[in-house]
Amino acid sequence: MSETQQTIGEYLIQALYSRGARHIFGVPGDYVLGFYHILNQSNKLKIINTCDEQGAGFAADAYARVNGLGAVCITYCVGGFKVVNPTAQAFAEKSPLVVISGAPGIKERKKNDLLHHKVRNYDTQLEIFKQITVDSILINDTTTAVQGIDRVLSSVLRYKRPAYIELPRDMASVPIFTPQKQQHQKKQLQQQADSSSPNETMMEIGSISDLTSLHEALSEATAMINSSDKPVIVVGIEIHRFGLQEKLLQLIDKTKIPFVSTVLSKSVINEDHPSFLGVYEGAMGYESVREYVESSDCLILLGALMTDINFAISSTPIEQSRSIYVTSEKLSIKHHNFENIFLHDFINGLIEAPLARRDFITMRKASNNKVLSLAATSKKITAQRLFEILNFSIITNKTIVIADVGDSLFGALDLKIHGQTEFLSPAYYCSMGFAVPASIGAQLANPRLRPVVIVGDGAFQMTGMEISTIARFNLNPVIIVLNNGGYGTERPMLDGPFNDILRWHYSQIAQLIGRGKGFVIETEKQFEQVLSEVERKYSKELCILDVRLDPLDGSQALKRLTEALAKNVRKNA
Amino acid sequence: MSETQQTIGEYLIQALYSRGARHIFGVPGDYVLGFYHILNQSNKLKIINTCDEQGAGFAADAYARVNGLGAVCITYCVGGFKVVNPTAQAFAEKSPLVVISGAPGIKERKKNDLLHHKVRNYDTQLEIFKQITVDSILINDTTTAVQGIDRVLSSVLRYKRPAYIELPRDMASVPIFTPQKQQHQKKQLQQQADSSSPNETMMEIGSISDLTSLHEALSEATAMINSSDKPVIVVGIEIHRFGLQEKLLQLIDKTKIPFVSTVLSKSVINEDHPSFLGVYEGAMGYESVREYVESSDCLILLGALMTDINFAISSTPIEQSRSIYVTSEKLSIKHHNFENIFLHDFINGLIEAPLARRDFITMRKASNNKVLSLAATSKKITAQRLFEILNFSIITNKTIVIADVGDSLFGALDLKIHGQTEFLSPAYYCSMGFAVPASIGAQLANPRLRPVVIVGDGAFQMTGMEISTIARFNLNPVIIVLNNGGYGTERPMLDGPFNDILRWHYSQIAQLIGRGKGFVIETEKQFEQVLSEVERKYSKELCILDVRLDPLDGSQALKRLTEALAKNVRKNA
Repeated sequence: MSETQQTIGEYLIQALYSRGARHIFGVPGDYVLGFYHILNQSNKLKIINTCDEQGAGFAADAYARVNGLGAVCITYCVGGFKVVNPTAQAFAEKSPLVVISGAPGIKERKKNDLLHHKVRNYDTQLEIFKQITVDSILINDTTTAVQGIDRVLSSVLRYKRPAYIELPRDMASVPIFTPQKQQHQKKQLQQQADSSSPNETMMEIGSISDLTSLHEALSEATAMINSSDKPVIVVGIEIHRFGLQEKLLQLIDKTKIPFVSTVLSKSVINEDHPSFLGVYEGAMGYESVREYVESSDCLILLGALMTDINFAISSTPIEQSRSIYVTSEKLSIKHHNFENIFLHDFINGLIEAPLARRDFITMRKASNNKVLSLAATSKKITAQRLFEILNFSIITNKTIVIADVGDSLFGALDLKIHGQTEFLSPAYYCSMGFAVPASIGAQLANPRLRPVVIVGDGAFQMTGMEISTIARFNLNPVIIVLNNGGYGTERPMLDGPFNDILRWHYSQIAQLIGRGKGFVIETEKQFEQVLSEVERKYSKELCILDVRLDPLDGSQALKRLTEALAKNVRKNA
Repeated sequence: MSETQQTIGEYLIQALYSRGARHIFGVPGDYVLGFYHILNQSNKLKIINTCDEQGAGFAADAYARVNGLGAVCITYCVGGFKVVNPTAQAFAEKSPLVVISGAPGIKERKKNDLLHHKVRNYDTQLEIFKQITVDSILINDTTTAVQGIDRVLSSVLRYKRPAYIELPRDMASVPIFTPQKQQHQKKQLQQQADSSSPNETMMEIGSISDLTSLHEALSEATAMINSSDKPVIVVGIEIHRFGLQEKLLQLIDKTKIPFVSTVLSKSVINEDHPSFLGVYEGAMGYESVREYVESSDCLILLGALMTDINFAISSTPIEQSRSIYVTSEKLSIKHHNFENIFLHDFINGLIEAPLARRDFITMRKASNNKVLSLAATSKKITAQRLFEILNFSIITNKTIVIADVGDSLFGALDLKIHGQTEFLSPAYYCSMGFAVPASIGAQLANPRLRPVVIVGDGAFQMTGMEISTIARFNLNPVIIVLNNGGYGTERPMLDGPFNDILRWHYSQIAQLIGRGKGFVIETEKQFEQVLSEVERKYSKELCILDVRLDPLDGSQALKRLTEALAKNVRKNA
C-alpha cells in the first residue's frame, strides 16, 4: 500500500507504534467498531479487551508507566466516561496515556439530534476530557488530522500527562491528507521514529532551557549544597517519568549525597544503592528516615510532587528555606522561583557543577533493618507478618510489586524492592481498584516481571473481575487479597457500618472464571507454604491468595498514618 | 436540638428526606467520612454502600426513576469520576439524581497545593459535573448553603435531570445560617415538604405556561386531531418522569385514540390497556405496529425523546408534517414551534378540548399475539425461546423487569409487562452494566416488586459484582445472564476477537460471595423448571441463572436492529 492511501485510523496506529506502543486496551462499542477492525487488521497494536472500561483505563495507565506510552480505546460517552477516573489519575500522577474515543460521525451529528449515547451536546465528552488532559483533538478535518495526531502525541511525551483523541466513526477510514512537499519530510520522521525505542523517544523533549536563568540557578544551588552539612536528595516520580534515572545515579555517585524516595517514587532508583536511606513517608515512615530528612540543612527535591501523602502529614514538615525544589514545571530555591528551566538540564548542570564529594557514612538503613527473617509460626496471620514474610520470599528481581491503595500500599512501602521501577502504586491520586487491572498493563509492558499484586478486599470488589482478562491473555500474576471485611484504612479514622463489605471467598474466583489457582490463608505457616508453591509449582499460573485478616488489623505504617489523617477528619469535620 | 443548631450536613439530609428520598447510595472515602457519619446518625436515609461507585451511581439512578428522587454520595475525584457515566446517563434519560461529593475542606485547599485525589485544580470535578447536570453548587459559604441546596434540589425535580452538590469536609458540620425573619417561613415550608409524598412533590413544577401560546397551540392541535383519520399517541418517557400517567390515561380514555410506547418508555402506561398497540421500535419492532404508526396521519408525540434507538432506524421515519411533538423542552406542530408551554398544561388542555371520540377497533395486538405458550422442549435453549418462556412464567404484576443493553433489551421488548413502570432499561443512553446495580435501587424504592434482571454476559462482567451488595441488603432479584461468550449485539455488525469474552461459570458466584442460589441452564425444559423453582422454592433468595446460548444466537428484534446498525457502521466507516 502506498503511503498516500494510509487512512487516518492507520496513521494513528502507526503513530502510536512508532512511539513505542505495542498494545492497546479497551472495550469496543458501535461508534468505535470500525477502528477496532482497523486495529485488528493492522497487527501492530495487540488489542487487550477488558471486562469494563475502567479496567482498561487502569491497565493502560500502568502500561504507560512501565512502557513510556500507553493507549486506551473506547466508545463514545458510555465508554469514555468510564475512563474519566483513570485519565484523571494519569494526569495527577503524570502518566503518558493516550485516550482514543470513537464517536458519532461528523455527518450524522448534523442530521440527528439524539443519537444513542449522546448526553448534552456532541462536544460534551471533549469538554470533559479537556479538564483532565494536557492536549485534545476532535478529528473532524482530513487536512489537519495528521498534524493534530502528531501534536497530541508529542504533548503526551513532553508533559507525561494524558491526552484525548476523538475519532468520529466516519473519519477512521478516510485517507490522510499529505501535500506533496510534506511527504518526504514525513517519511524521514517516520523512519526515525520507527527505529527509536520508547525510552529514547521519551527523552526527545525538544525545547531548551533559558541558559542565563539556568546558570544563575546552578550557581546558587551549588553554593548552597557545598555550604551545607547534611544535604539529602529526594528522588521524585518525575525522575522515572522523564527517564532520568541514569543521570541521577551519576549525580549521586559523583557527590555521594544520600537520597530518599517518596511514597509515589519508591524504587525509581534501586533500593540496593549504598546511598539510599529509605522511603520518606512523613509521619507514617520510619523515624530514622524522617528525622534525617527533616533535620537536613539542604534538601534537594528532584522531580518530586509535594503531595500530602508524600510529605504533609508530619509534625515538622519540610522547610522551604532549606530546599532546592525542581520539577518539570517549576524550579525554586528557598523562596524564589526561576522560569524556563528544564529538569533534565538542571540535573545535567549539577553533574557538571563543582559539587564537593561527601564522606557519607552509611546510616542505619530504615527500610530493611527492622524486617528480620523471623520464622513463620502457626499463629493467625497479621498484616505486619504478611509483609515481613513477603519480603523474604517471593519478591525478587523478577517481580514487580503493584500495591493498591490503603494498607496494601502502606504495608508494601516496607518491602525491599530489588530492581528499578519494580514497584507501582497510585500513591498520590489514591484511586482504589488500580492494582488488579494494572498488573495486566505492567506485565504486557515488561513480560520479564511477574506481578505481585497486593490489594485490599474493598479495592478488589471494585475491579477484581479483571482477573478474567488476566486469564484470557495467559498472564500469571500473584494476587494477594487482604481480606479484612471492609475499608481498613477508614476504620481507625471514623468507623461505621458503611465501612463493612461482604467477605467473599476470593479463592473461588478460579472456579467462577474457570482458570487460575486459588488459596485460602489463615496462618503465617500457610502463607509461607503457599508462596513457595506459587513460586515453584504454579509459576506460570494466575494465583489468587485469600489472606484472612482481622478487620481491625493493620500494618504499623497504617496505624501511624490513620492517626494523622483522623486528626484531619476531626479537625475539618 | 433546636432548628438553629442544625448543621449543613443535617439540612441536606433533611432536604432529601422531605422530597421523598429514603436511601442513599455510595462508597465512603476520607473526604466524605464526616458526612457519612452524620448520615448514619441521622437515621433518615439508609446508606447503601456498594462495591464500586459505578454501581452506586446506577443503583441511585434506578432508585430515582422508581421513587421520583435518588441520591448518590461519594468521595472527591476518585469517587466522583466513577459516577460521571451514571450521571451522564441520568442526564440523557432524565432521571432525578442528586450527586453529593465530599471534597477537601475550603480551609485546607488554601494551605495545600496537592492534597490527595486532586487532579488539576480544586474545581476540576465541579467543572466536569457542570457539563452533565442541570444545576450544581460548591458549598463554601454558610450564608447561602440552605438556599443553594434548595435551589439545586428544585432544579432536579423541575427538570428531572441530575444535579451536583460538592460538600467540602469542613462544611458538613457547620451550623446552617438562618436569619431571624426567615426562620418561620422556613419552618412552614419544611412542614409542607415533610407531609408530601415524592410524587406530589414531583408535580410541584411551579412555573406557568404562556396562556396565549397554549391556547393557540391547543386550538391548532385539536383541529388537526379532529380532522385526521388515524391518529396515534406516542407515549414518551417524560410521561413517567413528570408523573403524568393518570392524566394521559384520562386523555386516552376520553378520546379512545390508540397509543404506542417507545423503547425507552415501555410500560409507562399499562400494557394491558385496550388502546395499547405495542412498543414502536422502528425497523426493530413488529411490522404491524410500525406500519400503523408510520401510516398515521396525525402522530401525537407526548414526552417522547426522538432518539435513534426509539425512532430513527426505520426506512420510513416519522413525518414531521403530520406530527404534534410535545416535550418538557419544546412544542412543535408540523414545522412550527411554540415557546413556554409546559407538557402538563398541554395535556390538561387536550383533556378539556373538544376532541372527537374515536371508534377504535382493537387492532391485532403486536406485542403478544406472536408469543404463544409453546411447551418447553428438551432442545438447547435459544434467545427467542428464552423470552417466550419468560413471558408465561415469572413475569407477573409482582415483578419489575430490568433489562441491560443489547439483546437483553431488544428481546425484553416483547415481554408483556403487567403493571405501570415495571420495566426499566437505559434504552437511549445504552450504557452496559446498568441492570444488576439498578435492581438494588429499584427494589429498595419499591419492595413490592421482585426484579427480574436480564443481562448479557458482557454487561455482567462490568458490574455483576454488585450481587454482593444485593446479598448484603437481603434483596431477592432473579438475575438471568445471557451467556453467549461476548458482545452479541456487535457480532452481526462487525465481528472480531475483540467481541470475545471469557465464559464464566456464572452460577458459581453464589459460592464466591457465599450467598444466593446459582443455576446452569442448557435447555428449554431446564429453564422452565428453574423458573418455577425460583418462583416457589427460592422466592426470598437472590437467584443467578446462567443461560448458555450460542455466540451467534439472538432475538429476532436484535437481528433486525443490528442489520440496520451495521448499514450505518459500513456507511460511516
